Amino acid sequence: MTNVTVLGAGAWGTTFGQVLADAGNDVTMWAIEPEIVEGIRDHHHNGVRLPSVEQLPANMTATGDRAEAVRDAEIIVVAIAAQAARRALADFRDLIPERAIVVSLMKGIERGTNKRMDEVVREALDLPENRFVAVSGPNLSKEIAAREPSATVVASTNPYAAAKVANACSTSYFHPFTSTDVIGLEMCGSLKNVVALAVGMARGAGYGENTAAMIETRGLAELTALGKAAGADPKTFAGLAGVGDLIATCGSPLSRNYTFGANLGKGLTVEEATRVSNGVAEGVPTTDAVVALGDQLHVPTPLAFAMSHVLHEGISCEQMLGELFGTEITAE
Amino acid sequence: MTNVTVLGAGAWGTTFGQVLADAGNDVTMWAIEPEIVEGIRDHHHNGVRLPSVEQLPANMTATGDRAEAVRDAEIIVVAIAAQAARRALADFRDLIPERAIVVSLMKGIERGTNKRMDEVVREALDLPENRFVAVSGPNLSKEIAAREPSATVVASTNPYAAAKVANACSTSYFHPFTSTDVIGLEMCGSLKNVVALAVGMARGAGYGENTAAMIETRGLAELTALGKAAGADPKTFAGLAGVGDLIATCGSPLSRNYTFGANLGKGLTVEEATRVSNGVAEGVPTTDAVVALGDQLHVPTPLAFAMSHVLHEGISCEQMLGELFGTEITAE
Repeated sequence: MTNVTVLGAGAWGTTFGQVLADAGNDVTMWAIEPEIVEGIRDHHHNGVRLPSVEQLPANMTATGDRAEAVRDAEIIVVAIAAQAARRALADFRDLIPERAIVVSLMKGIERGTNKRMDEVVREALDLPENRFVAVSGPNLSKEIAAREPSATVVASTNPYAAAKVANACSTSYFHPFTSTDVIGLEMCGSLKNVVALAVGMARGAGYGENTAAMIETRGLAELTALGKAAGADPKTFAGLAGVGDLIATCGSPLSRNYTFGANLGKGLTVEEATRVSNGVAEGVPTTDAVVALGDQLHVPTPLAFAMSHVLHEGISCEQMLGELFGTEITAE
Repeated sequence: MTNVTVLGAGAWGTTFGQVLADAGNDVTMWAIEPEIVEGIRDHHHNGVRLPSVEQLPANMTATGDRAEAVRDAEIIVVAIAAQAARRALADFRDLIPERAIVVSLMKGIERGTNKRMDEVVREALDLPENRFVAVSGPNLSKEIAAREPSATVVASTNPYAAAKVANACSTSYFHPFTSTDVIGLEMCGSLKNVVALAVGMARGAGYGENTAAMIETRGLAELTALGKAAGADPKTFAGLAGVGDLIATCGSPLSRNYTFGANLGKGLTVEEATRVSNGVAEGVPTTDAVVALGDQLHVPTPLAFAMSHVLHEGISCEQMLGELFGTEITAE
């Protein structure tokens, strides 16, 4: 049994908290919203962000007090919106116990800095590499909240930290695998959103499985090449956090990036799609970040390039596919 | 413009014939059923096997005469049911022009011999390796028949033969890539059916994207390891014919193996599922072939092993997943 604190009680944070509690740990959720704290603490219910779960585990509580939240924590899980993480974590910098392991559930690239979440978390908390762990995989929160069988990857350059976190989140329905490739894991989780946008676009345009599979496969090859050039292990991209997460994300019409892309495929402009989605999807700024990363690492990124023409020049799905596949026949 | 003959006018053979005709070739379909020959030849319609296409291209005709079918063919495409191929091709052995390239669209492992389709075709026709080409990818025939954007892999140990066939089937909606890895392509196309069975089973049991993605990813790793041990290129498994075809097959409830698995997941016995499906799905005998191949090559095949317990001992989806993932935490 371990004392675990989860910072952020959104759908995924609360769901992961339930996994940790199901695994037998004492779990404290920290949230900024008093009604969420009260709901979890007094009624074992997060009606705001995870209404589908009627009764959260008894060994899960909540607090709105930062110091109290992390004081006794051996593992601190961060599940805050990617773009808000740096600022939110600054308030915890002097509160985190000296030996606590910090786990990031976040996926994304920080706008402005183009940094990965492992970089953001470690900078914001002044955290050494050997106390950082990332978790990523085909993990749609709704299905894990319903305790459907799922697997994930727990990565740290410190194998002991990865093993400790994997043990803490292992249940009959949630199967963690360990890895040492933090960079690969982070890249998979953020860059896949560009592919999800493109697949959503093809679906929105009315195309089926073949077109989706073609975009996913070529997109995966593009991300793998980028990862390899950035020092990640290509095997991570062929694993649960890579192709696995891509399959789950592109298979679910619930994903924000997929939906945003689908609206583009139906003919909406980026502005219209943004309005319908109440904000821009993560894959939109990520597309530019991937093109920039490709330039920097001298890796061709045809899918991100074609999607950037969709986002900035408004080309159609047919034109995007035409750019992506051209007319020449090449070796795969 | 090339003279191409397609042997077999099923859904995929007729669809690929339409691709070849759309690419500008003169296409002759050969079929054993007089009504199919007459339909294509006289009415440009294959009402028996591809009723969704109302008007097949003008440059596609048909014949029931074997000698006439192949006499002038530069490329001969074989699209016969996998288990019937050896016997059907025997009748063409002495008719195939000396320099014609033979293309296999078939996927499967021959029962009894456990041979791949490239081996079956070459043996049945006494065909040298440099005149054999295999085509495989995320190619659900219904979507290609509707001219939706799709990509495929055209593989031959002879790059000139692969390029000739790729050129012959390249259209605005059908994008061939070339490869030299015939063994990898054949293994992907047949072995993926075991994964499709397992994914179908999980879906039938009511599970969602996470469970499907987890099975697909771990299944892909298993097939890749087998392929590597058998002399195939692991990159093929990460490509269109590998992960691409797996995504399309597991994403489509139209696939025979998926449906067979789904019925098992709903609680039907193998006998009941066979009755409902009007025969056993290809993935059923392939499961035993994969277990045998794993033994022979000393490669662990946990998914095929667990699925063999489903098929022979009637274990449930939960038990199958339990066998597959166990309780130990391991590196990915």
